[in-house]
Amino acid sequence: MLLKGNLIAAPEPGRLTCLPGGCLRLTEDGAVDAVLPAVPEGCAEPVEDWGDCLILQGFCDLHLHGPQYPMVGMGMDLPLLDWLSAYAFPMEARFADVAYAREVYRRLAAELIAGGTTRVAMFSSLHTDATLALMEELERAGISGFVGKVNMDRNGGEDLQETAESSQSETVRWLEACGDFRRIRPILTPRFTPSCSDAVMAFLGRLARERQLPVQSHLSENRAEIDWVRRLHPDCGRYWETYEKFGLWKPGTLMAHCVHSDEAERAAMAAHGVWAVHCPDSNGNICSGTAPVRKLLDEGVSVALGSDIAGGAQLYMPQVMAAAIRASKVRSMADGSRPLTAAEAYYLGTSAGQRYFGGQPGFPVGEKLHAVVLDDGAFAVAPPRRLEERLERALYRSGPADIRAVYAAGRRVR
Amino acid sequence: MLLKGNLIAAPEPGRLTCLPGGCLRLTEDGAVDAVLPAVPEGCAEPVEDWGDCLILQGFCDLHLHGPQYPMVGMGMDLPLLDWLSAYAFPMEARFADVAYAREVYRRLAAELIAGGTTRVAMFSSLHTDATLALMEELERAGISGFVGKVNMDRNGGEDLQETAESSQSETVRWLEACGDFRRIRPILTPRFTPSCSDAVMAFLGRLARERQLPVQSHLSENRAEIDWVRRLHPDCGRYWETYEKFGLWKPGTLMAHCVHSDEAERAAMAAHGVWAVHCPDSNGNICSGTAPVRKLLDEGVSVALGSDIAGGAQLYMPQVMAAAIRASKVRSMADGSRPLTAAEAYYLGTSAGQRYFGGQPGFPVGEKLHAVVLDDGAFAVAPPRRLEERLERALYRSGPADIRAVYAAGRRVR
Repeated sequence: MLLKGNLIAAPEPGRLTCLPGGCLRLTEDGAVDAVLPAVPEGCAEPVEDWGDCLILQGFCDLHLHGPQYPMVGMGMDLPLLDWLSAYAFPMEARFADVAYAREVYRRLAAELIAGGTTRVAMFSSLHTDATLALMEELERAGISGFVGKVNMDRNGGEDLQETAESSQSETVRWLEACGDFRRIRPILTPRFTPSCSDAVMAFLGRLARERQLPVQSHLSENRAEIDWVRRLHPDCGRYWETYEKFGLWKPGTLMAHCVHSDEAERAAMAAHGVWAVHCPDSNGNICSGTAPVRKLLDEGVSVALGSDIAGGAQLYMPQVMAAAIRASKVRSMADGSRPLTAAEAYYLGTSAGQRYFGGQPGFPVGEKLHAVVLDDGAFAVAPPRRLEERLERALYRSGPADIRAVYAAGRRVR
Repeated sequence: MLLKGNLIAAPEPGRLTCLPGGCLRLTEDGAVDAVLPAVPEGCAEPVEDWGDCLILQGFCDLHLHGPQYPMVGMGMDLPLLDWLSAYAFPMEARFADVAYAREVYRRLAAELIAGGTTRVAMFSSLHTDATLALMEELERAGISGFVGKVNMDRNGGEDLQETAESSQSETVRWLEACGDFRRIRPILTPRFTPSCSDAVMAFLGRLARERQLPVQSHLSENRAEIDWVRRLHPDCGRYWETYEKFGLWKPGTLMAHCVHSDEAERAAMAAHGVWAVHCPDSNGNICSGTAPVRKLLDEGVSVALGSDIAGGAQLYMPQVMAAAIRASKVRSMADGSRPLTAAEAYYLGTSAGQRYFGGQPGFPVGEKLHAVVLDDGAFAVAPPRRLEERLERALYRSGPADIRAVYAAGRRVR
């Protein structure tokens, strides 16, 4: 089959490959067979012709909290600790109810696909069965990626905390139940250092090594948190060392935020292949600060983007890409660093995630197709524009209502 | 007629009046007759029942550039001066073509109404006939407010500049042609101090006085501009004095941005009844800075919101309200000032504009109805939420696709 339209790929940060009226030739199982500048003459294969629509890479959201989905966009006037106690923790506690969880997660999966997000790395809650329901609903919707049952055996609160023992046994029970999933795989998820006792951290580190499991957590999100971590682990000079000492700081570890990561912490990320997940909307909403994205990139740290709902209020990744540009301008005004371009933000929200999951950037030949067909007609006003401009405009102006089709892992899912 | 739904009004900054299942009784000509907590028993009047939808006040956009509409969301990676020369000025120059202007302005008016913006204060270009076309299209769509033919007789460039003489004669020709408009009225619009010779500024000051016309312009948007103004008017200690010395600094004058307005400039605004139009999205996109909105409010300056397309990339006012909250948090992180709440942002995007146009805040009895019916079902996930929370969520999550009906000046226009 051939998929025809205006192809826009991000082969590397800051560079776009644009093919007006280009086409993707797909194998029978939905892998990209060739990227062509036009439909070949005399082509006998069926052509799915998307006319003047943009064909973008599928979006990757590498940090979000599934159980916070019902509270997106609320309580943003509250300081962080009040927000956690009034919204986030009571909300997550409801996911002890699997039926409720399944209903919410089905909607979340549908909204992700409707917005073109085809790959995720997501936090669930501490509840094993709700986590399995989340994995099922994401897989059923066609989404690929990682989901983690959260570990938190301290500092959670009455209704949202495990014991060290149950945290470990439930993690094992969860991992054993994950065998049937194909596209959604487990990721170890200590909530963040203050949420986990040394026993649980050490247990997770062992699991990560023995079962070759990836890890995700939070790092250097705000200053009060950093001080707290320092008090909890006086032996660790820096936040990241609290993960490293338990074997959780390793290639492919995802660390959300890194707002206040200093030069040494950034160097440790680059040296160990740890990824930073930049969540600009969340960082602004809950007044965490503005992450040094340009520095992270310049210093060789791998960076991807996250919506971080519900600290973030925007699930639609082009809005998160635009938020990343805006945040980089806030940073630029403070320290003179070069802001992110639209092409860079698009790379961070697409190709960076592809790389994280072991693929190549752009529309790589030989890999299953992840793509979004976006009709920008609703906000295209004469004169006509170049594809680079239309991509930029789509980041600022489009919404899920403009998406005409979504392909995930080689299959049309919308 | 009665209009029934969940009423949310902003009678004063920071305070909401919420009436779940409330209703608005309207007179035959569309004025609000009463605001009621429920449909009266035995009521014989026809009821337009919007069920569980939110009924919000109509949105007011008090600063935007009509002729920049075709370039919204593009060129945001460029520095201000490159953006002006590559996008803004060539774009505006096209509006010498009235047919083109009318086509663009018809779409702009439709998008404003589709997004619930029922009142505006807008810059046109320097072209008299295109300005009249803009006024016609806005009025036809049901929008009320002010539109200004731009005056610019210096520093514009080859294709976008008047002579001092033509600037004056065209302004007179424009004003004479404005007699037939009912809802859209003229506002004098020196682009900004560097664009207008003393002769044109003095002429506009005289017109403002003699014909009792309002004035809009730009003030203290970025530091390079402020330095430039100082060089152009060495006799003026501060930017605002360049408007004051020509009689343009008076009650009801709208000054867009005020990002770098210091205490003295803010005091002059408060003392003279000059309004600040805060354009948070634009200020971030073109790296102008972050306006001191909390200070402006605390010091008694009247503040309203503007999309400032195409420096701003969002025409939908709830997004601008959310952007104002985000900008206030950037400011808060820098100087400890209290961020805007959702209730305050809603006030600034609705009631503040109503006050600007001589009305009362909220849904005032005796005034023509401006209202937006918003269905938040697409992003309402259980559990149910209070109206205050639903309003906040709508600011962060809604888009024009969620709007079910718009009432402007007492008439349903969508």
